Amino acid sequence: VADPVSAAEDEARLAATVAAIEPLDPVVLAAAEAELAAKTKPRGSLGRLEELAARIAAIRGAVRPEALEAAVVVAAADHGVAAEGVSAYPPEVTAQMVANFAGGGAAVSVLARRAGARLLVIDAGVGRGTANLARGAAMSEAEALGALGDGIELAAELARDGVGAVVLGEMGIGNTTAASALSAALLDLDPSEVTGPGTGLDAAAVARKAAVVRRALAVNRARLERPLAVLAALGGLEIATLSGLALGGAARRMVVVVDGFISAVAALVTVRLAPAAAARMVAAHISPEPGHRLVLAELGLEPLLDFGLRLGEGSGGALALPLIDAAQAILAEMATFGEAGVTDAGR
Amino acid sequence: VADPVSAAEDEARLAATVAAIEPLDPVVLAAAEAELAAKTKPRGSLGRLEELAARIAAIRGAVRPEALEAAVVVAAADHGVAAEGVSAYPPEVTAQMVANFAGGGAAVSVLARRAGARLLVIDAGVGRGTANLARGAAMSEAEALGALGDGIELAAELARDGVGAVVLGEMGIGNTTAASALSAALLDLDPSEVTGPGTGLDAAAVARKAAVVRRALAVNRARLERPLAVLAALGGLEIATLSGLALGGAARRMVVVVDGFISAVAALVTVRLAPAAAARMVAAHISPEPGHRLVLAELGLEPLLDFGLRLGEGSGGALALPLIDAAQAILAEMATFGEAGVTDAGR
Repeated sequence: VADPVSAAEDEARLAATVAAIEPLDPVVLAAAEAELAAKTKPRGSLGRLEELAARIAAIRGAVRPEALEAAVVVAAADHGVAAEGVSAYPPEVTAQMVANFAGGGAAVSVLARRAGARLLVIDAGVGRGTANLARGAAMSEAEALGALGDGIELAAELARDGVGAVVLGEMGIGNTTAASALSAALLDLDPSEVTGPGTGLDAAAVARKAAVVRRALAVNRARLERPLAVLAALGGLEIATLSGLALGGAARRMVVVVDGFISAVAALVTVRLAPAAAARMVAAHISPEPGHRLVLAELGLEPLLDFGLRLGEGSGGALALPLIDAAQAILAEMATFGEAGVTDAGR
Repeated sequence: VADPVSAAEDEARLAATVAAIEPLDPVVLAAAEAELAAKTKPRGSLGRLEELAARIAAIRGAVRPEALEAAVVVAAADHGVAAEGVSAYPPEVTAQMVANFAGGGAAVSVLARRAGARLLVIDAGVGRGTANLARGAAMSEAEALGALGDGIELAAELARDGVGAVVLGEMGIGNTTAASALSAALLDLDPSEVTGPGTGLDAAAVARKAAVVRRALAVNRARLERPLAVLAALGGLEIATLSGLALGGAARRMVVVVDGFISAVAALVTVRLAPAAAARMVAAHISPEPGHRLVLAELGLEPLLDFGLRLGEGSGGALALPLIDAAQAILAEMATFGEAGVTDAGR
């Protein structure tokens, strides 16, 4: 049973966070672009690395931003919809993998370590989890608000700790089904367009999963109005937590690193709540999951990597962190033509 | 004037190095693939990172290879063909940039540092340089052999120092013209197909550059037989040094990281001398330079990044090093399903 006082607090925190997310500062952006043009290289010859560097500067509000301390957050939760047989893995794998993250043996553990990032595993709802969204609402709005608030609070803690870049990672057997339902509802698409194999379904199982998503949309139809109501009806506790983390991260000038399909859907919920947040996001990669491309296009994000990753966990986000670090480095550490005494052709 | 004794030594060293480059060990490759399949993730869900990991294992000859100590080598040389006005930059920029590399302010300096790689700047012919290939042979075969030998010797030193991955970087005003001429000759293509803007030419200047390449092919026609003769006639001292470095690196089980167009052309010369070397190469990125794609296709290499980089220096190679490091890490450090006690769906 939801506590009305804490629900009101969660709502107030959400509204304040949304209000705190500003558009990127065009003055800092232009100054960073000018700084990049003066570096010892032909104009624009570092391509996307320069675009990324200018974006980081504008997000951080500094022409020569400091190195970004990074955190990979893996929010984990169980999903009632797993009872519909929508995953190749049994539900107990969620909790087993949480132990594996902590033990350092999962992909995201290894990749975060190599990237020099801290890894935080958040129990957003392991064990308790959501109700089966194919039979009704996955959560109440109060529950969704609570998870959003947890994510916002986590972002505040990370910002206090000096974190400048946060990866949205997740674990939850069944959560690609929730992500498919959310993206179908938020983008007004047919379930077949946004339902894929997840971590390993064959074609027949994908068709059954799309049918589950279709049922979820039908049974929740009356609830699919405001973004918060959509999140509650079709989401997951880890997805809502990540949406809050992205909101809080954007409000605190963090670079918000989007991983795979589920992470992108959490980011989409964030942007529906606060459109200005999109400019503070970076898409780490594009996966083969069909909905991922559609959601990134809606967010206006161009992925950094195309590696065929379909694992989730934040693994692709952790893999892309050194590219983000490299972009910051060229802006902060490269010499200008003047500093280095190199003849500039002025192109 | 070439010394006949050292020329004979260079030839013997080249032949011995070519003979030492073995095909990848299929047993290690298969064992690494089996190891990756047992890791705590759905089969193949790390996509290209898994392919790269298996390749690294086979190159290094170890199913769980050690972390790769990396070196970025920037070979620099001047080019007589710069007198034809084929670059947006004056020739003195080669030497100025060598100072900038050493000073730590160039893109490759910054990116190598962030990647934790050592940077070696090699004077392959700054000041002396090659003759103008549009008017005759750029080098004698003895000079080309000498530069190949220097690269082979450098690979041997790096291997003794524990280096496991080497990036082929270069600096030389005018060297995209040499690379265009080499690739046209080696791939039997029209100069217009492999001549691009380099670091910043407009369309009219690209057309003039293609005409220079056409003249170079015509004036050197009688010389364009064996790969070594092609390298001597149309190459550069830094390109020949990098071809030797790639040969020596392949012979000593290093991962040879190919950067942009010029680096790829050096690798193509290597593979023409020793076809088995291609399997020990990794393409860091694809640039907008038109010949780059054609050369990588000939080498059978799929680029890791598509960032629109057109700087050279080894900058793209340095940028890709953390991806190679990540691939090694998942193979060496991820837990298997058995080790972590995670239920395997067996897909």
